[in-house]
Amino acid sequence: MRPTIAPLRFGANYTPRSQWMHAWMSLDLDEVRRDFEALAELGLDHVRIFPLWTVLQPNRTLIRAEAVDDVRSVVEAAGELGLDAGVDVIQGHLSSFDFVPSWLFTWHDKNMFTHPDALSGQAELVRRLGEALRDEPNFLGFTLGNETNQFSARNHPSPWPVTEAEAATWITTLLDAAREAAPGVPHVHSEYDAAWYMDGHGFTPRLASRLGDLTTVHSWIFNGTAQKYGGRSTASDRHAEYLIELARAFATDPARQIWLQEVGAPSNCLTPEQTPDFLEATLRSVARTQDLWGVTWWCSHDVSRSLADFPELEYTLGLVDQDGLAKPIGRRFAELIPELRERRAAPPRTLGIVVEVDGEETPVSRDAMSPGGAIFQAWVDACEAGVDPAFVTSADAAKPEVLAARGITELVRPELDHVTYSSQNTVV
Amino acid sequence: MRPTIAPLRFGANYTPRSQWMHAWMSLDLDEVRRDFEALAELGLDHVRIFPLWTVLQPNRTLIRAEAVDDVRSVVEAAGELGLDAGVDVIQGHLSSFDFVPSWLFTWHDKNMFTHPDALSGQAELVRRLGEALRDEPNFLGFTLGNETNQFSARNHPSPWPVTEAEAATWITTLLDAAREAAPGVPHVHSEYDAAWYMDGHGFTPRLASRLGDLTTVHSWIFNGTAQKYGGRSTASDRHAEYLIELARAFATDPARQIWLQEVGAPSNCLTPEQTPDFLEATLRSVARTQDLWGVTWWCSHDVSRSLADFPELEYTLGLVDQDGLAKPIGRRFAELIPELRERRAAPPRTLGIVVEVDGEETPVSRDAMSPGGAIFQAWVDACEAGVDPAFVTSADAAKPEVLAARGITELVRPELDHVTYSSQNTVV
Repeated sequence: MRPTIAPLRFGANYTPRSQWMHAWMSLDLDEVRRDFEALAELGLDHVRIFPLWTVLQPNRTLIRAEAVDDVRSVVEAAGELGLDAGVDVIQGHLSSFDFVPSWLFTWHDKNMFTHPDALSGQAELVRRLGEALRDEPNFLGFTLGNETNQFSARNHPSPWPVTEAEAATWITTLLDAAREAAPGVPHVHSEYDAAWYMDGHGFTPRLASRLGDLTTVHSWIFNGTAQKYGGRSTASDRHAEYLIELARAFATDPARQIWLQEVGAPSNCLTPEQTPDFLEATLRSVARTQDLWGVTWWCSHDVSRSLADFPELEYTLGLVDQDGLAKPIGRRFAELIPELRERRAAPPRTLGIVVEVDGEETPVSRDAMSPGGAIFQAWVDACEAGVDPAFVTSADAAKPEVLAARGITELVRPELDHVTYSSQNTVV
Repeated sequence: MRPTIAPLRFGANYTPRSQWMHAWMSLDLDEVRRDFEALAELGLDHVRIFPLWTVLQPNRTLIRAEAVDDVRSVVEAAGELGLDAGVDVIQGHLSSFDFVPSWLFTWHDKNMFTHPDALSGQAELVRRLGEALRDEPNFLGFTLGNETNQFSARNHPSPWPVTEAEAATWITTLLDAAREAAPGVPHVHSEYDAAWYMDGHGFTPRLASRLGDLTTVHSWIFNGTAQKYGGRSTASDRHAEYLIELARAFATDPARQIWLQEVGAPSNCLTPEQTPDFLEATLRSVARTQDLWGVTWWCSHDVSRSLADFPELEYTLGLVDQDGLAKPIGRRFAELIPELRERRAAPPRTLGIVVEVDGEETPVSRDAMSPGGAIFQAWVDACEAGVDPAFVTSADAAKPEVLAARGITELVRPELDHVTYSSQNTVV
């Protein structure tokens, strides 16, 4: 197993200081540079950007050249400040707001994951954007939209349900388009934690850990973790690490990199004073995991109070405030990056918590993996006993060679209970 | 009763030749002037324009100054070509596509007609746009969006149902804002024909004929009329006149003007060869009605075939084609305008077809008014017998002074049947 040796990457999900994502509607590059400068000053090395789908592709066959140019200009602006830029391409869902083009809803309602026209339309957008970005030296690759699995969730207001096979087809169709149009950079997909916690959800751990060039992890403690265990509990401080280790258990490539693509300090779970320490605890925890690509904090800038209707916590998630000044959490991030960037050997994880899977390698109970579930609790218990646990699927647990390769010498099999995961992820 | 003496107005609903309404996303004033020039050459005197709601107000409290400026620039461009400009402000619903800002749907689903935040947000948009337009000498006033009652219809994909009182509150709230911000020009609201044909629909004949400074009529023969009677039948040729006369029956101001704000020649009901004759028949029919403000044809330009997913008929509704050339229907329009502009005395309408209404002055059966219903059929029968009928509500039919003032000397009372109006209006 080849250990990852490149420095850990640290960046931010870019939420424009003025007008939030609506800034894409009439892009002001001076404002973008101003925003990126504040991030570069913190020592970040990359941003993840979110051009709106409705702005890029208002009609299925109208991919606006101006909007594509704007995305390239923002990537170039990042480059001017020494920042790499990952680009979300199907956007989609952000901070509780949906941006669905009119050719996909109401009179034109089509399942964005399964309808042939929806698929080909999205693939074309990926291609067009890929062609525009592939020569940008700081382009980090595509993410197939932010937590687009929201649109497939049973509890989503406008559900386009998918089977695992349909979700896989959507992901691979768009990944293929991305690789064709912009080869040589990693392209990934992203899900909110229903992929891990919600039984029956078409986006599964297997897809998360096997499709795309890296596994992405989005960690939000408002998903019940903070409510049940406390905002500064072991469970909350190590929630991102928990998802990273779960993701590792479902990978087939033992050296597959994992990108903690979203993690933030939500004000409904943490006091303002707690947020720098939460950030530090999270970073120190995940820096100890193997093959971590990096961490992209949510988010760069507080949402302006001049914009209405965001969930309250969204107004305070930034590293930088509305005056452009680094907040205490941003300053703590800046202090930690030089130390954490240098990669250290990950501690051994000899204890394997077994995740019972079915013949498709889908967890028998994703409920049990969710906050308060038996598998989740087994992790918390082990952590609090001073152990760094790993996860292993029941399929792999039966293979001594896999256990040996991973250095797992002891197994625990949590008794599955029946907690029902009710997503509280109505934000980000 | 004062007869209207100003010349009849003729114009077009403006569908930009390039990129359709998406042109608002990156406005090209040269293209706008090019399009308006083609309309001015036909002899039109006004346009109705449709800036997209999502472009103007992507967040409830973010009314984009750039987008407001763009609306003013388009009104000014119209003025340069000698065209007046009516402006739709809540847009909304166009040609089967919905443009609903993300602050009103899915996670943020709010009834746009009744939720206090939705109401105040829309009123603010009306005010801001009114302040920007009130000094433009060719500004014709606001329409409160194109057939926004689509969003309240029982058969609409995302219904926000309303009672008549709620619909009235929405209309008057926005009209008040319009009058406050831009006094001295007529402000109106518009509905698709469910207001006339669909029982239980919250937008009613009473609201259509009494709120706003004029009554607007949208006449589409694909609503069942052409299917039942034929595209070039009396029923189809005089469908706009029918709605105008129905609208007159519900007005309290006997001299209230009526604006035939939308009428078009749909290809699913008419052959290309029939469309100029249908236009002529429609214009000659409505020109004989009293107090008609004018006619605004749907639409100015064919939708580009490069744009996907429109209902087929939308690609061919223009007066002007995709090369910028006037089509036969456009040329016929141009030929007729000089003759029809000059107002002639409307023929007397001595036969009153009675529309039975309840205590609220709502028709007892809007089904009976719909294509094929008893009231509709009575109109067709009278027209085919060479009579120009009027309509009168059963409430007015009991008032000899009202009948005398309108010159109605004979009444027919159709026996109400029970046709169920199933809207086929999935377009425009």
